[in-house]
Amino acid sequence: MPVFTDYSTLSRDLRVLPSFAPPLPRVSPKFDPGSEEKYEVIIAGAGPAGLFLEVLLARYGLTDASLLCIDLKPSALKSGQADGLQPRTLEVFQSLSLADEIIQSGCQMWELAFWNPTTAPKNIERTSIVPDVSVPARFPHEVTIHQGRIERILEDDLRRYSTRGVQRSSQLTRVVIDEAGDPEFPVEVDIEGPSGTRTVRTKHLVGADGAHSLVRRSINIELEGETSDFIWGVVDFVVETDFPDIRRRCAIHSDKGSVMVIPRERIATGEYLTRLYVHVQDEVAPDSDIVVKEGAESDKKSKAKARREKISLESILAQAQEVFKPYKIRPRRPDAVDWWAAYQIGQRVSESFTKQDSKGVNRVFIVGDACHTHSPKAGQGMNVSMMDSYNLSWKLIHSLNGLTPQIGSGDKVLDTFQTERLTVAKQLIAFDKEFSSMFSGQIGPEDDQEGGLTHEQFLEVFSTGNGFTSGCGIEYPENLLVDKIHIEGLIAGTDYLSGVLRPGRRLLSVKVKRHADGNKRELQDDFPSTGRFRILCLTSTDLLDASGDSSKALNHISQILSKFPKGILELVILHSLSSNTFDWPDLPEVVKAQAEMQFYNGTDLDDAYRIYGVDPKKGAVAVVRPDGYIGTVASLDNIDGIYAYLRGSLREVETTAN
Amino acid sequence: MPVFTDYSTLSRDLRVLPSFAPPLPRVSPKFDPGSEEKYEVIIAGAGPAGLFLEVLLARYGLTDASLLCIDLKPSALKSGQADGLQPRTLEVFQSLSLADEIIQSGCQMWELAFWNPTTAPKNIERTSIVPDVSVPARFPHEVTIHQGRIERILEDDLRRYSTRGVQRSSQLTRVVIDEAGDPEFPVEVDIEGPSGTRTVRTKHLVGADGAHSLVRRSINIELEGETSDFIWGVVDFVVETDFPDIRRRCAIHSDKGSVMVIPRERIATGEYLTRLYVHVQDEVAPDSDIVVKEGAESDKKSKAKARREKISLESILAQAQEVFKPYKIRPRRPDAVDWWAAYQIGQRVSESFTKQDSKGVNRVFIVGDACHTHSPKAGQGMNVSMMDSYNLSWKLIHSLNGLTPQIGSGDKVLDTFQTERLTVAKQLIAFDKEFSSMFSGQIGPEDDQEGGLTHEQFLEVFSTGNGFTSGCGIEYPENLLVDKIHIEGLIAGTDYLSGVLRPGRRLLSVKVKRHADGNKRELQDDFPSTGRFRILCLTSTDLLDASGDSSKALNHISQILSKFPKGILELVILHSLSSNTFDWPDLPEVVKAQAEMQFYNGTDLDDAYRIYGVDPKKGAVAVVRPDGYIGTVASLDNIDGIYAYLRGSLREVETTAN
Repeated sequence: MPVFTDYSTLSRDLRVLPSFAPPLPRVSPKFDPGSEEKYEVIIAGAGPAGLFLEVLLARYGLTDASLLCIDLKPSALKSGQADGLQPRTLEVFQSLSLADEIIQSGCQMWELAFWNPTTAPKNIERTSIVPDVSVPARFPHEVTIHQGRIERILEDDLRRYSTRGVQRSSQLTRVVIDEAGDPEFPVEVDIEGPSGTRTVRTKHLVGADGAHSLVRRSINIELEGETSDFIWGVVDFVVETDFPDIRRRCAIHSDKGSVMVIPRERIATGEYLTRLYVHVQDEVAPDSDIVVKEGAESDKKSKAKARREKISLESILAQAQEVFKPYKIRPRRPDAVDWWAAYQIGQRVSESFTKQDSKGVNRVFIVGDACHTHSPKAGQGMNVSMMDSYNLSWKLIHSLNGLTPQIGSGDKVLDTFQTERLTVAKQLIAFDKEFSSMFSGQIGPEDDQEGGLTHEQFLEVFSTGNGFTSGCGIEYPENLLVDKIHIEGLIAGTDYLSGVLRPGRRLLSVKVKRHADGNKRELQDDFPSTGRFRILCLTSTDLLDASGDSSKALNHISQILSKFPKGILELVILHSLSSNTFDWPDLPEVVKAQAEMQFYNGTDLDDAYRIYGVDPKKGAVAVVRPDGYIGTVASLDNIDGIYAYLRGSLREVETTAN
Repeated sequence: MPVFTDYSTLSRDLRVLPSFAPPLPRVSPKFDPGSEEKYEVIIAGAGPAGLFLEVLLARYGLTDASLLCIDLKPSALKSGQADGLQPRTLEVFQSLSLADEIIQSGCQMWELAFWNPTTAPKNIERTSIVPDVSVPARFPHEVTIHQGRIERILEDDLRRYSTRGVQRSSQLTRVVIDEAGDPEFPVEVDIEGPSGTRTVRTKHLVGADGAHSLVRRSINIELEGETSDFIWGVVDFVVETDFPDIRRRCAIHSDKGSVMVIPRERIATGEYLTRLYVHVQDEVAPDSDIVVKEGAESDKKSKAKARREKISLESILAQAQEVFKPYKIRPRRPDAVDWWAAYQIGQRVSESFTKQDSKGVNRVFIVGDACHTHSPKAGQGMNVSMMDSYNLSWKLIHSLNGLTPQIGSGDKVLDTFQTERLTVAKQLIAFDKEFSSMFSGQIGPEDDQEGGLTHEQFLEVFSTGNGFTSGCGIEYPENLLVDKIHIEGLIAGTDYLSGVLRPGRRLLSVKVKRHADGNKRELQDDFPSTGRFRILCLTSTDLLDASGDSSKALNHISQILSKFPKGILELVILHSLSSNTFDWPDLPEVVKAQAEMQFYNGTDLDDAYRIYGVDPKKGAVAVVRPDGYIGTVASLDNIDGIYAYLRGSLREVETTAN
């Protein structure tokens, strides 16, 4: 078109860049390290747990001056083997706009086939095919993808917020809490890097430094648990097979042993990888990379070592072939094996996840493998580790930014990290023990159950565990940030896995239609991981009545919003009225003023009221925490209950002004 | 887990990087420029059309040695104002894995509200709200997003394939076709850059150099058409308004004039932009940036110029306020105006899009604004321009890589670029004329139609145009690559917009369930823009019968696949049987051998057979071109028809071996 006049602002040009997450408000004094090298947070280890924590803190607003992450590895490319992402982890990545590459390039696992023993010559037969994820989730599948790729995606994003990125070829060699030296920066560490060792202080230290964590050992916390006698081989390869379910996740039990099939992503040749977990029929003594006892135990260990060394790629593949018979399975070419390893199943968890200073402030934290190890078969490793960091991240930044309430000594919000994640870790260990040992055991044919396990028993453990393994059924226990208040008749039903509102569980995503523009959206998209609390108000059918319950509740909420630092609380509103039968002037003013673009029809698409267990005639209000978990729920006439919860979670503006 | 043996291949580490598009096979001799600066393709201009072409050619495998794109702009940041993406364009971006940022960060337009005159004091009232996109599409909405951001996304992707990227601060100053000098590189151009002017040769030159295209003028092609008398102002700003539909696309006709509202993306302040197109009630003479005639016309022009200069931001906003009355609309703050411009509507198209050499080979092409200009209100600009490049790109690389058939002189495949895109451009101009002039006209209240336009007439033009404006209803005319063969009874129905298979139209995406792993996918994801043809076989219900029609057809297709260069043809298969009632051995061998991961249940989710108009009892076969458009369809017993089509589109292996 012939344009003859054209004017634009300078800021317009900047909008070609990807969007940045908006940093959180800070009401505490600006960080001033002075002349010494000091930080607000040091993270030891840049595996998935450490890197994810750094990305989150950087997005919340911590700069390179405040935040340091070190890792011994010289580059990001060398990677581990925890290559599965659970539906809840995908939701969290989506809330950071980081899910697309994973979902598009990874292998989506939608189905699980069970194969069990039968009579020769068939030997094994398919008992059933079930959905791999049987609970409602935004992404109803797992994804398998190279762990190194997850780390690269995180590091790419980190580079947008941090000039330094991860400080590499560096490791901690000493950790002490020394309040006398500097009470504000009580954690003193030695960092050994390419140019020598230096001593650095920090407000908080996070050990994401793996199962052998120096941070954990420095604060005298031990991993407790045991290594089982089960030995497994694992191999990633391009297969040549006539087994019909090779692209499904499979649990195969034969008379010759057990194999788990994990389909994996496509590689550059255009071929697809397959992972097999193969139960090696040879018992060895427990390995122990912690709590080594002298004497008999170490003798046992050295014998076990000799036996383990006999395990080879060839022996793993030969054992797999035995289990698959009469189907053939082998690498498509001699060089078609991508990776293989052997391991013993071990489940351990540390008794504590934090170390406090003398004032009760949590100064040192451990996350990921540093505080729990388990078997890989439930696909939890990378997920639980990153979710540790996800849980810690916003509590830590709220504390640093002065957004947590001043209640007694210490920082009670930070205390909830251990309360919540230790509970989850223990549940994980318990589930993993049951699942692994069942998986390593025998399943008999249906007509021969003597001493064995039935398929139905195995399926039962799998299905009940699905809420847990998908990450979608995690429920945090009652604590300062989880108020499991129960109001008779407010929330109907107990099917929390299907979305019924329940403090301690994540808010299930539902499809809603926005009033302002008719946009059909996932509700979770209004709960991005930017460190904000949100009030979710499900208004009642009297919304258009200026003196009704909904109107009163919204006006009350509006007052509460102003009591907390600007930008830390957001409002999302659902209604159950017919779309386009009213306009903005028909609504309480607060709707357009506070939530013009977060105001939805909650029944046109999904019936959010029914899913959440809320009666449209009564409505309800929930507080959703920065990590998407529900903090509390209240009736429309009890906004004081919402206020009470928020005062326990956030510092009020008035308090700050004192 | 305690791992005690661990082995991995080197290639494993590389898989942390984003996936690359697989380059196309090349059967022509390797490109050897010798000692002079020579290219296979030079692209003039790196706006959306030029940049998109460069990205596509680079992904198909052209290296920096073969491919040069130059642009006068010193950086990518300065940008235009064509900020809307249509559903079909989103599908194409998705087929390149480039849609995510656009869809997440852009403003999705789902609804369109019509506002029409009524009696005072209301003046205007909402007549109806309709879906903005009324035809089936993978993304049922438009997206508005800064054009500069699209360019940045393209350039980011380009950088993965090209070290040089766009050669900036450079422009063409001379273009000639000189076959005597070098018949293989007959196009000679002068490039003026920061270090002077150099003369360079190329096999092909593409002019993506805008409405004033030097390339177009150099090959003596003129834009034909006219500029209307309608003057419009356009302004992007953060609004303060009580108009209820400000976040919907609106067509507002009042007695005071017309305004179109285009909601736009959120900006860094957290606020949302709105664009208004405002009809300025002041007629001026046509602007003419082409074919300037001396005398009377230029006198008229200078008078018009004086009148246009009177148009200011203030006059545009004042006129908008008149139309919106009684609603108030103004910038939220004095600095809340992001961009504004004034323009005249003009529709022009060039009579030819290419220039051939003496042997009939198309050597010079023009794309985008260089060959067609129109009004912005149908939101077509950037879309049609990029789709020009999309159409040209694979034909050009097929020609260069020796993949096109040798039929007579020239390269018939390249000829189809003009056949197809000139048709679309002419349709665009015709639609735009009708739409713009209706939009600039008056709409009377329902009881007063004298000389005016009724709302129903306007709605009719809008709705029938939706297939065109969404990009989803584009139909290329019959040509070498579009065989509109009609077999009585093969394809049922004529509702092509809803998906009924029709040569010349794009394959609508449907949701299908994969046999191998139960993955629920969009079928379009098996048609990525990698330059490949695909055979889509909708098998009949006799698929499990080894001597049935489906089996015979698949075996015949398998033979055909081997007749063309390896990797240029892919096979996608649908079935209408019940899932999991059969296994691989029950199927024709070709299914697993050629399409293990492209074999779907076509009725479990969407009913693809019904949508595509195919009787499950009979089945059908379609060829889908590299750009996702259907080339031809045939019955299962006429695979020779498929073969005949492919021989017209691709070079056979035997031919190459001669």
